[in-house]
Parts: sequence; structure tokens; C-alpha cells
Amino acid sequence: MKTLTLAELAAELGGVVVGDGATVISGVAGIREAQAGDITFLANARYDAYIDQTQASAVICSREARVSSIPLLQVENPYLAFQKAVRLLRPELYRPPPGVHPSAVISPEAVIGEGVSIGPHCVVAGGARLGARSTLMAGCYLGEQAVVGEDCMLYPHVTVREECVVGNRCILHPGVVIGADGFGFAFDTGRYHKVPQVGNVVVGDDVEIGANSTIDRATTDSTRIGDGTKIDNLVQVGHNVVTGDHCIIVAQTGVSGSTRLEDYVTLGGQVGVVGHVTIGRGAMVGGQSGVSKSVPPGAKVSGYPAVPIGVWKRVTAYLMKLPQLFERTKALEQRVEKLEQEEGEIVR
Amino acid sequence: MKTLTLAELAAELGGVVVGDGATVISGVAGIREAQAGDITFLANARYDAYIDQTQASAVICSREARVSSIPLLQVENPYLAFQKAVRLLRPELYRPPPGVHPSAVISPEAVIGEGVSIGPHCVVAGGARLGARSTLMAGCYLGEQAVVGEDCMLYPHVTVREECVVGNRCILHPGVVIGADGFGFAFDTGRYHKVPQVGNVVVGDDVEIGANSTIDRATTDSTRIGDGTKIDNLVQVGHNVVTGDHCIIVAQTGVSGSTRLEDYVTLGGQVGVVGHVTIGRGAMVGGQSGVSKSVPPGAKVSGYPAVPIGVWKRVTAYLMKLPQLFERTKALEQRVEKLEQEEGEIVR
Amino acid sequence: MKTLTLAELAAELGGVVVGDGATVISGVAGIREAQAGDITFLANARYDAYIDQTQASAVICSREARVSSIPLLQVENPYLAFQKAVRLLRPELYRPPPGVHPSAVISPEAVIGEGVSIGPHCVVAGGARLGARSTLMAGCYLGEQAVVGEDCMLYPHVTVREECVVGNRCILHPGVVIGADGFGFAFDTGRYHKVPQVGNVVVGDDVEIGANSTIDRATTDSTRIGDGTKIDNLVQVGHNVVTGDHCIIVAQTGVSGSTRLEDYVTLGGQVGVVGHVTIGRGAMVGGQSGVSKSVPPGAKVSGYPAVPIGVWKRVTAYLMKLPQLFERTKALEQRVEKLEQEEGEIVR
Repeated sequence: MKTLTLAELAAELGGVVVGDGATVISGVAGIREAQAGDITFLANARYDAYIDQTQASAVICSREARVSSIPLLQVENPYLAFQKAVRLLRPELYRPPPGVHPSAVISPEAVIGEGVSIGPHCVVAGGARLGARSTLMAGCYLGEQAVVGEDCMLYPHVTVREECVVGNRCILHPGVVIGADGFGFAFDTGRYHKVPQVGNVVVGDDVEIGANSTIDRATTDSTRIGDGTKIDNLVQVGHNVVTGDHCIIVAQTGVSGSTRLEDYVTLGGQVGVVGHVTIGRGAMVGGQSGVSKSVPPGAKVSGYPAVPIGVWKRVTAYLMKLPQLFERTKALEQRVEKLEQEEGEIVR
Repeated sequence: MKTLTLAELAAELGGVVVGDGATVISGVAGIREAQAGDITFLANARYDAYIDQTQASAVICSREARVSSIPLLQVENPYLAFQKAVRLLRPELYRPPPGVHPSAVISPEAVIGEGVSIGPHCVVAGGARLGARSTLMAGCYLGEQAVVGEDCMLYPHVTVREECVVGNRCILHPGVVIGADGFGFAFDTGRYHKVPQVGNVVVGDDVEIGANSTIDRATTDSTRIGDGTKIDNLVQVGHNVVTGDHCIIVAQTGVSGSTRLEDYVTLGGQVGVVGHVTIGRGAMVGGQSGVSKSVPPGAKVSGYPAVPIGVWKRVTAYLMKLPQLFERTKALEQRVEKLEQEEGEIVR
Repeated sequence: MKTLTLAELAAELGGVVVGDGATVISGVAGIREAQAGDITFLANARYDAYIDQTQASAVICSREARVSSIPLLQVENPYLAFQKAVRLLRPELYRPPPGVHPSAVISPEAVIGEGVSIGPHCVVAGGARLGARSTLMAGCYLGEQAVVGEDCMLYPHVTVREECVVGNRCILHPGVVIGADGFGFAFDTGRYHKVPQVGNVVVGDDVEIGANSTIDRATTDSTRIGDGTKIDNLVQVGHNVVTGDHCIIVAQTGVSGSTRLEDYVTLGGQVGVVGHVTIGRGAMVGGQSGVSKSVPPGAKVSGYPAVPIGVWKRVTAYLMKLPQLFERTKALEQRVEKLEQEEGEIVR
């Protein structure tokens, strides 16, 4: 493992040292688990209290962080700086070396770039193309005419079906399925008839897709994932969905067919979005929400059904008081009845 | 690519041409992406406005569709007709040829039908049977005594565990798992003890199961998927569930153990159904609903917990006005208090 | 298949026979499907009515069960006793024999225990260790320095990435992914930058993980699954989550990063838990709930957002009456307005 002083790290990451710059840093760790020699970080206010208990030798934090007894490295974006620190201190160890394993089955009509690594039991079908320096780990499958760009990493058991396209510098985690048939059936005379799904999937550059997530191919045309979009595990993206660039889709979310996400959209975990709607640029959808209509750019929505998050918070707060409201209404009814009786007596 | 005139297509599909029957059609596409030479379709009212903008050479639409400047092919079921047009104009290209790849591991006790295609790195265990003309793509696994019928397509990395049965003409998408153990444990003396799951899964004919979906084997007896049922991606079907024929289960839905779906049930996406209940014939459950008790035949339910959809819509509409209701109640309380004071003064 | 008398079975399971102890038992089955010769069980009151209709030769039931015309085996924990009966009457048939299939790719630097079974097309990377008597079924992948303990069963297509650790007697169902990267990105200058995930996953002893579930590796340090914890299918466990011992996590549930489950926690199906909270010892979370803050030990919560289950039940009951409440409030407003007018007249 590499070793740096805190001052050297500050020079690399661009921050300001508060405390002893000669502190030696040899590892990275979470604030609760860090040991002497580790640098840790503070990016979530929930963990502020740990700064006095951590065993870390230094803490990466924001410029506003309060004075501490341990050395600080103050930066603008602590999580980003921590990321760079990890890259410096823990270079990747296990990237497989270039070469094609003899058990891999590569069509003579496939086009394989320079410096690729193809692991055991992979299959690359005819007409498929794999870009330079990309890695297919064990058991990956590229179908006919499928394209995977340069510098990609496909973890074990990834499937990229025929004619689908993956850009450069993409990461596909184990079990990802690109280009399974969209879910389209026409009902006639008592049964469902399959509508052939003859489109494909086009994944942009710098996309990451989490383990066992599924991106369906389009009925016709293309399902598209924009550049820089990051998708978590067990996410479902339906046929003909188009996501913009730099979207975030958290685990177990589902986006139904033909829906469009503009750039910089964030969908929390376990969100469901109906088909044929548009989520505007920069919109954010809270976890477990059910989005049943289009969301304007920049909006923050939440709930089931999804509404502006302030509305949802107010509604759920009142919801919990609903039993009381029934009691208050019942009391009112009794009071009004009494008033009505007295009124009647007075009038009589 | 094949080429047909619109009149020829009408003869094949059984529709009525409005406009120039000599229009040449060479492709299929969505209404927004279509180019000259393509035929497209209109089956969802959301896209009506596109009929004046599409570049398509013709549009398949319902008999009620309004007159347009481009040729129409009027049919009873536009989506079904489009499906047939796709089959005519885009025959499947990439179905693998018959044969067994040398890297596949086939038990000598397996029974393999005529004309099958078994891809690289497949495994077919002893006593397993694969019906005529079925395809196992790369890396599929059939366990001991597993049966897959005729004319099936298993995409890469499908697992069919021992003793499970899949009917004829089924499509299993990548990563499907048939026959993993049901989730059954008996709690005793501080820990959970596994209840062996010694039943199997029986999948009917003409069933399609989406990528990475999981159908658990029964504790005893069989988990059953009825003929013609279509299951989307990332769906979970618990042990001893029985679905009827021609059901639709949309992505990320979960059906808990021993629940029964009668024929023609539709479950929207991300639905959860508790165990040991029955969803009646033809019932429909809206997306993200939580079904906590049996649903009568033909009912349409939605919500969390699921109730008749009209009720749920009314409830959610009122829910959004809940903050106002609290204000109205507060105002009423003040008005009633004032009345009570005045009443007291009058009486006094 | 083995055969026992009911009296012999009672001796093995520790229960009391009511009826003919000489009854011959040769199989196990569900109460609705059982045939002559089978023993079945009654552990869920929903099925009480079936006791008079079952074809079974005997029924395992609780000590309180009412008298029946068929022989009973009364025990304290019917489900546990049934589990033992299954083990006696249906010994596992298909556990693969020891040995390493020639198509498996095993690094010479891997450490392989005695009596293991490694199926076709498996990959075991350098430095990985597989404990004695463990089974890797077809297509499993163990990364560099990964450890799988003794007596484990990994079904087909399981991925255990580098440096992850799985304990003894664990069962990983098909498609499980252990140690995919946690979902961590730092946003800067218009794009998301990957935060390297350099921690691992540590799974305890006697853990079972369902088909296609995903357990992410920690950013730094370890994601941990405690001893005896049972996880169902399609579950997502985020980076740096720590679950206690003997937890139950039902299908399609997601636990966000850095959240902690103490011992004996139960999460129902399709639950979502936010990050950085704690679910206390023995707490239970109802299906489809959304947990947005910590839950105290022993609490039973449900709903969206999750609240104590009694509160949620009351709230949802009232929720369904919300339309009526609006009507009652409107009626009150009219009555109060009338009173106010009359009051005005009297005063005048």
C-alpha cells in the first residue's frame, strides 16, 4: 500500500490542511472503522458526532467543518476528494490482464480491439465488436452485431443481446441484461400474441449499470441510456425508454415503456414511473414514489401518487392525525346538534 | 429486407386501405422515428398528435381513425396488426442454427429432441429432457430430471433446476431462475431451520418469463404458471403459487407463497400480493398496489392497501386536500365555540 | 422412498399420536394435494377447513388441534416437525458428487478443500479459497482472494467477487451477486465521478440468500450479513449495510447504504429502508413499507411512511372513509352557517 503525508495528499487533492501536514497516511476507511494511519471523510451530517471518536489519522471535510483535535483536510467536495484519495492510496489490484482465455468462444467474424481481456467461458457472437482495452469477465455473452466500446468493464454473467450498443468506459455489473425483449403483447381471441421486439438498446459513454438490472430492447427503434447515467442494482428499464445524460436511478426502480427522462434526473430507490411520460431536466423523485404523470423540469416530487415533495410531507403529517380529525368532527357534530336543539328551544 | 405494397399488406393483415394502396412499405418503426418507406401504428391516444408529423409512408390504425394526408391501413386491433406486419417485414435474423456446441456439457442420460440448438457452455444434467427444436443459448443450465418442451427459447444464463417442467413454445429471458427453493423456515430455539423445498415448478405452454425473474419451487407439490401467461422482468413468484392461464404480470411484481391467480388476471408493475389469497378471474391490479386480501373476479383494484380503483382514486384526490380539511375543521371549531358563547349569553 | 409408521415418526419428531400409530407414511404433501400414504401439516389457520377434506393419511398439527377422523401427530411446532418429516421421508436426491469438472477453470493459486464439488464452467480465481465439502454448481465465479467456507451450496451462476467472504453452511441461490460495487458517486462540474468501492462483503455462517439477490461491497470496510440470516429472492443490500444475526428479509426488499439491522429483525416483502438508520433488535417491518427513520427494538411498524402497525391500520381504515369525512364537514359548515344566521336574527 502506498504512503503519503497529509500535506502531499492536500497538494494532490487541492485542499487546505488544518493541523500537522506531516501526518502519514497509508489507508482509507469509514469514520467508524478507521484505524491509525487511515484518512476518513465527513460528508453526511449524521456522522458529525463521530469526529471526536474516530481513530483515523486525518479527516477530509468541508471548509466549514469545526476545529477538531485531529488533522483536517478541508476541501470543497469532501466525497469527491475522498474518491481521489482512494484512487491514490488503493490502486485497483484485480483488473484481469489482457488476453483471451482459451475456453472463451469467439466467432471468427467478431471484431476484437487491442488489449482486451476476455475471461473464461465468454461468448462473442458473429459480427460483435469489442473495443480496445475492454474487459469481459467470466461467462459474459455478446450477441450478434452487439457493440461494446473501449475501456469497458463487464463483470461476470453479463448478457448483451444482438444488435445492442454499449459506449466507452461503461461498467456493467454481474448479471446485467441488455436488450431482452420489451414486454409487448396484443390481446386477441382470448390470448396474448407476442409483438416482436426488433429495436435495440443504445447505452452511452461512462454509464454504470448495477448488478442484475435489466434494460429492455425497443419494440422498434432504440431504448437509450444517456452519457454518464448511473443505474443501481435490480433496476428495470422498459422498451423505448430514453434517459438523458447524467441521470441517477437508484436500486429496484422501474421505468415503464416509452417514458423519457431528461438530463440530470434523479430517481430514488423503488420508484415506479408509468409509461409514456416525461420527467423534466433536473427533476428529483423520492424513494418508493409512484409517478403517474409527467414531472416538470427541476421539480422535486414524492409520494404515492407522486406530488411536490412539500405537499407530500404535509399530507403525510396530516394523515397520521386523521383518526383525531374524525374524533374532532364527531365532537363538532354533537356540539352543533346541541346548538340546533337549543336554537329550536329559543325560537319556540 | 422484404418489400410489400400497402395493398398487399392489407391483404395479409385483413384491413382496409384509405389512400394509395400502391405505397411501397419496406420497414416498421415507431410513429416518431419512422422514415419514408416505414409503416407505423397508432394504438395509444397519447400519440394521435403525431399522425400529422410522422415521416412514415403509412399508418396502421383503428377503423375510427380520422382522415390523414398519409395512407392509412384501418384494422380492428392496430397493435396486433402491427405485430403481424413486423413478422412479415422483419423476419427473425439471429435464431441460432441447430446443433450442440462442443463446449456444452450434456449428460449421456439426458434426452435431447431433434433439431435443438444448444449453445456454448450449457449444462444439461442426467435425466433432463429438451424437446424438439428448442434452443438453449450460452450458459443455460437444466438440472436433473428437468423438462423443457418443444420450440422453446432459453436466452443466456437461464437456470431450470432439477425436476422442474417447462411447456412448449415458452420463452425464458436471460437470467431467469426456475425452481430455486421457496422461502420457508421454521423458527425454534433462537434460530431459523430450513424447511426443505421438495416440490417443483410446472410452467405451461406459450409462457414468456422476463429477464432475471424468479419462480420458486413448491415446498411440496408444484408452483404452477398457466398456459399463455406472460411475466415481465424481475418478477418474484413464491412457492406454491398457482397462476391461471393468460395472466399478465408486469415488472418487479411479487406474488407471495400459496397465492392463486385465476385466468386472465393482470398485475401491474411493482405490485405486492400477500400469501394464501385468491385473485379472481379477469381481475386487474394497478401498479404498485399492495393486495392484502382476496380480490373478486373481474374487480379492478388499486392502492396501498388495494381497494376498488374508483375508491382509491377518490381517496387519493381527497388525500391531497387533507391539509385544507384540517383548516376547515379548525375554522368550524372556532365558529362553533363562538356560537356556544353567544348561545350561553342569550340563555343567560 | 422411505416408509415409516406414524408411531415411528412420532418417536423421531417427539410428538403425540392421536389415532392409529400403525398408519404407514411414505410421503409428504400439502393439505390440499396430499394422497393416501402422505403426511401433511396444519400451521396456518386459513387451512383449518381442509382437515376434513384432505386425502392425507395423517396430519401434523399443534397440541390444541381439534379431533379429526384421520390420525393426528400433535407437536409444539408443526412447521418445524413437518420440516423434519420431509428430511426423513425425502432425503436430498440431487446433490452433485465430489469432484472438479474438467471444464472448470481453477487457478493453481486457489485453495480447494477436501470433498468439494465444482461443476462445469466454474471459475475460481487466484487466492480464492473454497472450504471442505462445499459445492459450486455450473457457472459459478469466485474472484481473487474470495473465501467460501465449508459445507456451502452455491447454485448455478453465482458471483462472489474478489476479497468477499462467505461463511460455513451457506446457501446461495442461482444468480446471487456478492460484492458488486456499492452505488457511490461524487457530483462535480456537471457529472458523476465514481467513488471506488474498495471494501468487501462478509457473510456469516448458516446464511441463505435467494435467487438474483445482490449484496454490494462496502465503500471501505465491510458490508456484513449476520449468522443465520435468511434473505429471499431479488433483495438489494446496499454498501456498508450491517445486518445482525437471524434476520429475515423477504423478497424484493431493499436496504440502503450504511443502514444497520440488529439481531432478529424481520423485513417483509418489497420493503424499502433509507440509508444510515438502525432497525432495532427484533423489530418487524410490514410488507411494502417505507422506513424513513430508525425503528426501536421490538417495534412492529408498517406503512408508507412506516409507523407503528396499530397506527397504520387505524390510519388506513380512516383513509377509506375520507370522502365521507369531507361530506360530513361540508354538512357541518352548512349547519353552522344556518345557526350563525339564526343567531344573527335572534340577536337583531
